[in-house]
Amino acid sequence: MKWKPNRDSHLTVQEQIIDWIKTRIERGDWSVGTKIPTQRQLATQFNVNRSTVQLALDELRADGLIESKMGSGVYVANNSWNVLLSKNQPNWHRHIESSIHKPNYHTIQLINEYEQIDHIIRLGTGELSPELLPTKEIEDSLRKISIDSKAIGYSSPQGSEKLRGILCNYLKKRGIESAPENILIVSGALQALQLIAVGLLEEGSIIFQEQFSYLNSVHPFQSNGMRMFSISREHQLKDNLRAHKGKRQSLFYCVPTLNNPTGYNWSLEEKQNLFNTCKELQIPIIEDDVYHELLFETSSPAIKSFDTLGQVLYIGSVSKTLSPGLRIGWVVAPSPVIERLADIKMQTDYGSSAFSQEIVSHWISNGLYEKHLVNLRDQLQKRAIYVEEILEKKFKKIASWKKSEGGFYIWLRFHNPIVNKTLFLKLLKENILINPGYIYEPRDLHHIRLSYAYASLEDLKKGLNILLQISQL
Amino acid sequence: MKWKPNRDSHLTVQEQIIDWIKTRIERGDWSVGTKIPTQRQLATQFNVNRSTVQLALDELRADGLIESKMGSGVYVANNSWNVLLSKNQPNWHRHIESSIHKPNYHTIQLINEYEQIDHIIRLGTGELSPELLPTKEIEDSLRKISIDSKAIGYSSPQGSEKLRGILCNYLKKRGIESAPENILIVSGALQALQLIAVGLLEEGSIIFQEQFSYLNSVHPFQSNGMRMFSISREHQLKDNLRAHKGKRQSLFYCVPTLNNPTGYNWSLEEKQNLFNTCKELQIPIIEDDVYHELLFETSSPAIKSFDTLGQVLYIGSVSKTLSPGLRIGWVVAPSPVIERLADIKMQTDYGSSAFSQEIVSHWISNGLYEKHLVNLRDQLQKRAIYVEEILEKKFKKIASWKKSEGGFYIWLRFHNPIVNKTLFLKLLKENILINPGYIYEPRDLHHIRLSYAYASLEDLKKGLNILLQISQL
Repeated sequence: MKWKPNRDSHLTVQEQIIDWIKTRIERGDWSVGTKIPTQRQLATQFNVNRSTVQLALDELRADGLIESKMGSGVYVANNSWNVLLSKNQPNWHRHIESSIHKPNYHTIQLINEYEQIDHIIRLGTGELSPELLPTKEIEDSLRKISIDSKAIGYSSPQGSEKLRGILCNYLKKRGIESAPENILIVSGALQALQLIAVGLLEEGSIIFQEQFSYLNSVHPFQSNGMRMFSISREHQLKDNLRAHKGKRQSLFYCVPTLNNPTGYNWSLEEKQNLFNTCKELQIPIIEDDVYHELLFETSSPAIKSFDTLGQVLYIGSVSKTLSPGLRIGWVVAPSPVIERLADIKMQTDYGSSAFSQEIVSHWISNGLYEKHLVNLRDQLQKRAIYVEEILEKKFKKIASWKKSEGGFYIWLRFHNPIVNKTLFLKLLKENILINPGYIYEPRDLHHIRLSYAYASLEDLKKGLNILLQISQL
Repeated sequence: MKWKPNRDSHLTVQEQIIDWIKTRIERGDWSVGTKIPTQRQLATQFNVNRSTVQLALDELRADGLIESKMGSGVYVANNSWNVLLSKNQPNWHRHIESSIHKPNYHTIQLINEYEQIDHIIRLGTGELSPELLPTKEIEDSLRKISIDSKAIGYSSPQGSEKLRGILCNYLKKRGIESAPENILIVSGALQALQLIAVGLLEEGSIIFQEQFSYLNSVHPFQSNGMRMFSISREHQLKDNLRAHKGKRQSLFYCVPTLNNPTGYNWSLEEKQNLFNTCKELQIPIIEDDVYHELLFETSSPAIKSFDTLGQVLYIGSVSKTLSPGLRIGWVVAPSPVIERLADIKMQTDYGSSAFSQEIVSHWISNGLYEKHLVNLRDQLQKRAIYVEEILEKKFKKIASWKKSEGGFYIWLRFHNPIVNKTLFLKLLKENILINPGYIYEPRDLHHIRLSYAYASLEDLKKGLNILLQISQL
């Protein structure tokens, strides 16, 4: 919990806020030059009205501790007392600005930040609603799990042998033949991408992806000096790949089943075509398959199921189906690749939580997992239909969409190019959080990734109504 | 479980081994040019004697599937059938060799590998023995933990608010004043170092450390293009720091309490001297404090407790005390630093296991943790005394050491420079795994990091006897 003023204190709320901010500055939490949060943000955090915050800031400004810069916000000021301090303060901002890793895009940082605030209606969140998580069942399973003292020591580089064995059987149902030594347990699919970036690629390598790509909203590859290249699945795939690859290393990243953000499912032909083309050009494929269990109808085989040559790095996870809090995913790949990624993972975090691995082993091995999936798909489909009915009634004139085939998302396309940061911020003012298309394709101004998986039904309705109004202003 | 031949199969063990290796090659697990494991390693994996492996390899060699290269080992051969395959195989080895991240040093890879083998005696493992882990108590606590569906969704960027609040109170006992917004939950201390490397430093930054340093056995900073510089705590600290820092960014990394590998404890004066010197030179300090709870006597204050300016990044963890399998640690730092590291962690793995965080919250908040520590320190001290008695009896002539003050390690110094890779491999032949000094300081040939924390008492005795013999050959 962030700090809030204590209503029972002998100090006024305003005095407490002033003291708290002074402490931040003295401690160096807010070093000289730090831009302090907006009045709006502070008011939200302190749970007071903005005028109270304003009065506190006025006093600090009077003391010369902070200063406003025209149109850019309020900063910790360079007053003499503070300079004295700052002399001995490491300049964290210089450290941060000159460091290696890219910060998240501002819109995405705002999304991460506002997702923490309870009263926000989240229309785009790619996460199961708390009411869809099998919380009670997981809690019950904790009662049944027996812990082996070997298992809770440092993990073997590739992760729990028990879980890897169980996954081999589980993956058979997806048409994938593997062995425990071909599997690496990771802390979610995103970590798999990170490990692939630093473990298999050199700077300047090319990552091919589809136009609208999850990889534009996170950037494991960009942060490691790789270049992203969007390419069409349908048109002259081979020529384009060959032309843009040149002599460089490259990988093709795709989410062929329930694509994030578009929800599209590749046909069997499209999968085979990509596989054969990449095979011929020796371009390895990353098949991100974290949504396939959420298809309402049965799915066509994974690309990995065609793979006899170790051409495809296959990624799975329970984050979209069981609980993101487990932080458990897996990579299936040829063993030299797995050993390499495991070696780096050992250097990064010494493996994933043994307890999470035990829980996932328990759920998959005794059928709890698949039982839960049946119910989950049913719930998600009901939610999809609910949202589609609202769209039918109210959005037909201004937008189009395809009926959801599963997963979380409806890729809503507005006829007019209105989905820009202004719209995003306007909606935020109304406590509506959306995932705008431009975080998946910077030039896009038409789309919103709607998620029917997170918000409650009435919030979805309320949120969509406000979206309707604002988007028509 | 790695594959083993099936004794009940209609195929001979040798035939099964041949088929298994052929499958590895066909699948591309072992692509052309892959060096295959040694006969010794395969024999261990298959649990057969080496002659069986040898016969199998001979047949594969006859088929032209593998070839021996003088003195360098056996490789997947470039025969015509295989070339056909490899044409369409991505060349993983080229990918791996040209990629960004450094592989672990060979000795450390061997340590990681042999730590997985049960009958190995581990004289150096920096990990609690299974019998010292409170496995039963953790299992019981799982029965009591109630899971909140909010908690098992995607975590807030800085980690569980509940746990961060609990840690604030816990850290007070270490003399550290912090607030939840100054804390980031990480998946162990090593991840904290990774995040600091990519989040706060530029390539070419200098990391100051002591001569014998844990950072030489892992390399979060080296892998990100930072340069390590060993420096003496005692001699002309300021001049040396100033001279070698130059205009570059730098950090001072230290384990002032129960240093890994030396077990040394800094005096209060040494801590204050480092703090003041670094403050003057504006060199931030990383205080790695993961062992302090294992001191047999009370410890002097953490460097972080002097810190009013956000000069010190403080790292703690439960991996050395409660269970490494939890993968939970924390960083205490000024909030701009915490927000930056949290942003990168969100891009790396979306946070640490919610279940691990719940377990740690439960253990710390209701006193289970400190109760366990009292008992653990007692157990460790008994083990330390046991080992020191063996050393007294048998090693006095050839080596020296300091009485352990806590933690896991005795930093055994041989009078003669005999601790080289040959000794390491000789001991490995006898199924004894040591942590040689040279993984903590490449030029060292005198030390072994003995750990009394992992092996059983009789294994410690047996292992030390073999060490005694081999080191006297």
